[in-house]
Amino acid sequence: MFVPRRLVRAATLSLRRAHTSAPALNSVNAEDIAHFSKFLTPTSIISTLSPQPSPSSELAPFNNDWMNKYHGQSTTVIRPRSTQEVSEVVKRCNERGIGIVPQGGNTGLVGGGVPIKDELVLSLGNMNKVRSFDPVSGILVADAGCVLESLSEYLAPHNHIMPLDLGAKGSCQIGGNVSTNAGGLRLLRYGSLHGSVLGLEVVLPDGTVLDQLSTLRKDNTGYDLKQLFIGAEGTLGIVTGVSILTAPAPQSVNNVVLALPKFDNVLPLFTKAKRQLSEILSAFEFFDRTAYDLAVKHGQGRALNEDETEGAECFVLLETSGGNKDHDDEKLNGLLENLMESDEPLINTGVISQTPAQFSSLWAIREGITEAVSKEGKAYKYDISIPLAEFKHVVDTTREHLRSKGLMRDDAVKHVIGYGHVGDGNLHLNIVATNYTPEIEAALEPFVYELVAKYKGSVSAEHGVGVMKTHALHYSKSDTSIEWMKRIKQIFDPKGIMNPGKVLP
Amino acid sequence: MFVPRRLVRAATLSLRRAHTSAPALNSVNAEDIAHFSKFLTPTSIISTLSPQPSPSSELAPFNNDWMNKYHGQSTTVIRPRSTQEVSEVVKRCNERGIGIVPQGGNTGLVGGGVPIKDELVLSLGNMNKVRSFDPVSGILVADAGCVLESLSEYLAPHNHIMPLDLGAKGSCQIGGNVSTNAGGLRLLRYGSLHGSVLGLEVVLPDGTVLDQLSTLRKDNTGYDLKQLFIGAEGTLGIVTGVSILTAPAPQSVNNVVLALPKFDNVLPLFTKAKRQLSEILSAFEFFDRTAYDLAVKHGQGRALNEDETEGAECFVLLETSGGNKDHDDEKLNGLLENLMESDEPLINTGVISQTPAQFSSLWAIREGITEAVSKEGKAYKYDISIPLAEFKHVVDTTREHLRSKGLMRDDAVKHVIGYGHVGDGNLHLNIVATNYTPEIEAALEPFVYELVAKYKGSVSAEHGVGVMKTHALHYSKSDTSIEWMKRIKQIFDPKGIMNPGKVLP
Ligand SMILES: Cc1cc2nc3c(=O)[nH]c(=O)nc-3n(C[C@H](O)[C@H](O)[C@H](O)COP(=O)(O)OP(=O)(O)OC[C@H]3O[C@@H](n4cnc5c(N)ncnc54)[C@H](O)[C@@H]3O)c2cc1C
Ligand SMILES: Cc1cc2nc3c(=O)[nH]c(=O)nc-3n(C[C@H](O)[C@H](O)[C@H](O)COP(=O)(O)OP(=O)(O)OC[C@H]3O[C@@H](n4cnc5c(N)ncnc54)[C@H](O)[C@@H]3O)c2cc1C
Repeated sequence: MFVPRRLVRAATLSLRRAHTSAPALNSVNAEDIAHFSKFLTPTSIISTLSPQPSPSSELAPFNNDWMNKYHGQSTTVIRPRSTQEVSEVVKRCNERGIGIVPQGGNTGLVGGGVPIKDELVLSLGNMNKVRSFDPVSGILVADAGCVLESLSEYLAPHNHIMPLDLGAKGSCQIGGNVSTNAGGLRLLRYGSLHGSVLGLEVVLPDGTVLDQLSTLRKDNTGYDLKQLFIGAEGTLGIVTGVSILTAPAPQSVNNVVLALPKFDNVLPLFTKAKRQLSEILSAFEFFDRTAYDLAVKHGQGRALNEDETEGAECFVLLETSGGNKDHDDEKLNGLLENLMESDEPLINTGVISQTPAQFSSLWAIREGITEAVSKEGKAYKYDISIPLAEFKHVVDTTREHLRSKGLMRDDAVKHVIGYGHVGDGNLHLNIVATNYTPEIEAALEPFVYELVAKYKGSVSAEHGVGVMKTHALHYSKSDTSIEWMKRIKQIFDPKGIMNPGKVLP
Repeated sequence: MFVPRRLVRAATLSLRRAHTSAPALNSVNAEDIAHFSKFLTPTSIISTLSPQPSPSSELAPFNNDWMNKYHGQSTTVIRPRSTQEVSEVVKRCNERGIGIVPQGGNTGLVGGGVPIKDELVLSLGNMNKVRSFDPVSGILVADAGCVLESLSEYLAPHNHIMPLDLGAKGSCQIGGNVSTNAGGLRLLRYGSLHGSVLGLEVVLPDGTVLDQLSTLRKDNTGYDLKQLFIGAEGTLGIVTGVSILTAPAPQSVNNVVLALPKFDNVLPLFTKAKRQLSEILSAFEFFDRTAYDLAVKHGQGRALNEDETEGAECFVLLETSGGNKDHDDEKLNGLLENLMESDEPLINTGVISQTPAQFSSLWAIREGITEAVSKEGKAYKYDISIPLAEFKHVVDTTREHLRSKGLMRDDAVKHVIGYGHVGDGNLHLNIVATNYTPEIEAALEPFVYELVAKYKGSVSAEHGVGVMKTHALHYSKSDTSIEWMKRIKQIFDPKGIMNPGKVLP
């Protein structure tokens, strides 16, 4: 029944190669700053080149990433207040051949949002207004710089919620979410941004404004160009406005953390939960024992006590949201009873939230893992899609591999942990080390990528490629695909000014 | 709070124009047929040019569209059985500069699937195998030529359903659905194909196979190229395989047809239904009185009797689907009671299905409208997105306009009707005439398109552009957008062989 892949691949050989050599770029100079000053307010320019130079400490938050793993040397950060200003800045950079790094909340985990050298940082934080909201259709139009959490707060009195949610919600911006095609905790229920983003306003690399800010649920008039910018990580243009379909707020939410005696139970548990909770299942998150212990160590986990977690090999956080509390409770209790009653129960125990505070503290365990990891040490983060059944195997194999290299020791790799959005087949494999060292990196790469490729997985399920994985793209994409990505890049950004060195090898 | 659009638009002026003049194309000749015969079985070739020429009656179903409105003069239909065969055929056409029209079930409503002149028709009907299905993730991979309904039947024993459904399900193919970005009856619940299609296999205009047939729910490794082919109506390449996320089959479904005293009640009814049914609301369809009467006249509507429909200005079909019959019934009954009880009820009456047969016959009214219209006469079909509140106004204004032109008479325009997917803001405006005449067309266009543009709507919500609306694209898309579509077309299909004359003006 399968089309033999080999046969088909052969046809790709005839493809001509697109340009790949990146043109040389120029640095921002004092004249550029003088030019920007003509149409920007002084507070929109942070630069060591200004007549009143900013101290470089003011630039540090823009030059270094959330993990403090990637470091740029930008002299200049521009914070425009309107699409028109973005367009003017980009036009200048295009004329002068200056590289631009669009930056949202700078919570990205692959080094995509900070400069590699001294590119200009274009920060969207000053564009943070809601443009419109229609409570009948649920369609929200907002500036790209709106922080995700503030959009959630804006929607709350209108009884709507954002179709995405993630641990970084307090800092990440909707423009950054769109540009990384962020997944997060609600994807299982509300689908990907490719479905829920209805329109975009984008400043292209030559300063042109591409206005596709549709507020229509359906529009089939030609190619859906906006899709190219969803997940382009700022390499094709700057997203300045987003139109997105929000969801009616559920009337009732529940969550529960389940402690599982063994990993093998995750898959049957997922199948059961899908069947019994069906349309009200809104999250199904997994974390292994080590991830849990780290979250507890760094301040989470008040919600569970020791006898509830004893002997558990891993945990699942399960959330329901629906329109009728009685119905939802009945469905969830039905599932839990069914789980406890069976002869060989899939779970040891479960803790169900009874109050909003408990609801939050259960979520805090799962959401706190990323932060706990960063407090514990320096993390190598692999965000991969693989078959659910292989989650544990991949974590164990990686740990074994590091052990065989003699790297599992207190002054090298401290922990290898796995957690993630099981419902989406998405595992976060984190290697927590004392320091980032070439030795550890060499032990991990391409080892991890080859493991992923073996399972026909993705080397980046949701965090994107950034600067971290450009060289690993080929583990998940064919030569033909990469070639066509380069052609797309070439027509939008022939001078290569837009987030240079990111995404494409 | 709004970015002034005019200001922003000004920046687009600097855009260079892409090539627009279409290259001249060649006709299929006897040598081409001889070439195809080398690698295709005889039954895969239907041609008046063969050594054993097919009668032109055999070509008729491929040359004429579902409405019998658009007519081509193709001499040759090719029906490949594998991606490799498609690639070989396309390679030949590319070398020889022969136009290709990809054709699925030929149920499209904008003339996109039939030739304009004598292009070669590449019919996908022989590629109709399911390649794989994973019941845990719900991911289905199928040949592009699989008929939508047969995929639904394939999934039924696995307790899954396709994320889309439409009246043409018995003939339309998944490749055609993807290529038109079909919406249909389940979009409200399961979202658009841009979200649910996970991967595509596409034969590009030079015969290269672009293999993006991912079976991963999440994959953020570079630009999401497959999105360009969703809704490209065969102008960028030929879809040969589709990977799609299917949904768990609901355990319980209900539907009800509600008769409304006046159109103004539709919007408040929709708001109430969304609130009370929330996650189990799976369809909210609208049809006006004339549409209903036509469906009944042509054999539907056994489900309602006269006293139930008397005095109704319009109707709503509402469907729920969920995981627990008791809960769903309770929610739906709660809504109906609430509707009937109020002082000024939003509905006159409602008919709720009690058996699977009744469930089907309620749906048959709504789904039968397209067919009833085609039995009644020749239809001018406008498939538009406009604000829900304007649905009736647009239908009435169009009728009045035709009346003022003296065209509302038995031997010209018989009916002007409105129906559609209210939940998606999508109205099907149909003008049913005795014949297609230039006079009626001139009265309707650009009149209807200007009306749509006035409400910032879309001239094609779901049917696409095809050959019908190329000249109307600019009512919904900016010059910059159209220019960029042309550039995309240019890099994928520099010779312009792929579905020439469609989509782009
Ligand atoms: C604690 C924590 C939890 C996280 N959880 C998740 C998760 O569950 N799921 C997930 O997918 N990710 C997660 N992330 C990763 C990250 O938060 C997301 O990728 C987020 O969407 C990035 O948004 P940002 O505004 O911070 O973008 P930034 O980090 O500023 O930028 C990210 C990339 O997008 C580009 N970019 C930003 N804004 C724009 C714009 N307006 N126009 C064009 N390009 C732009 C940048 O150039 C860069 O390449 C998490 C991160 C942290 C720190
Ligand atoms: C009774 C009826 C009800 C309908 N209801 C709806 C509805 O609710 N929602 C909706 O959106 N549409 C609806 N339609 C329109 C139509 O059915 C859909 O557009 C359908 O998706 C077309 O599929 P098809 O296989 O028949 O494609 P075709 O009609 O054969 O082709 C449509 C377009 O896609 C291209 N194409 C087809 N297959 C491929 C391929 N494999 N690769 C590349 N290009 C290809 C063709 O060149 C053409 O441009 C309806 C039509 C009818 C007759």
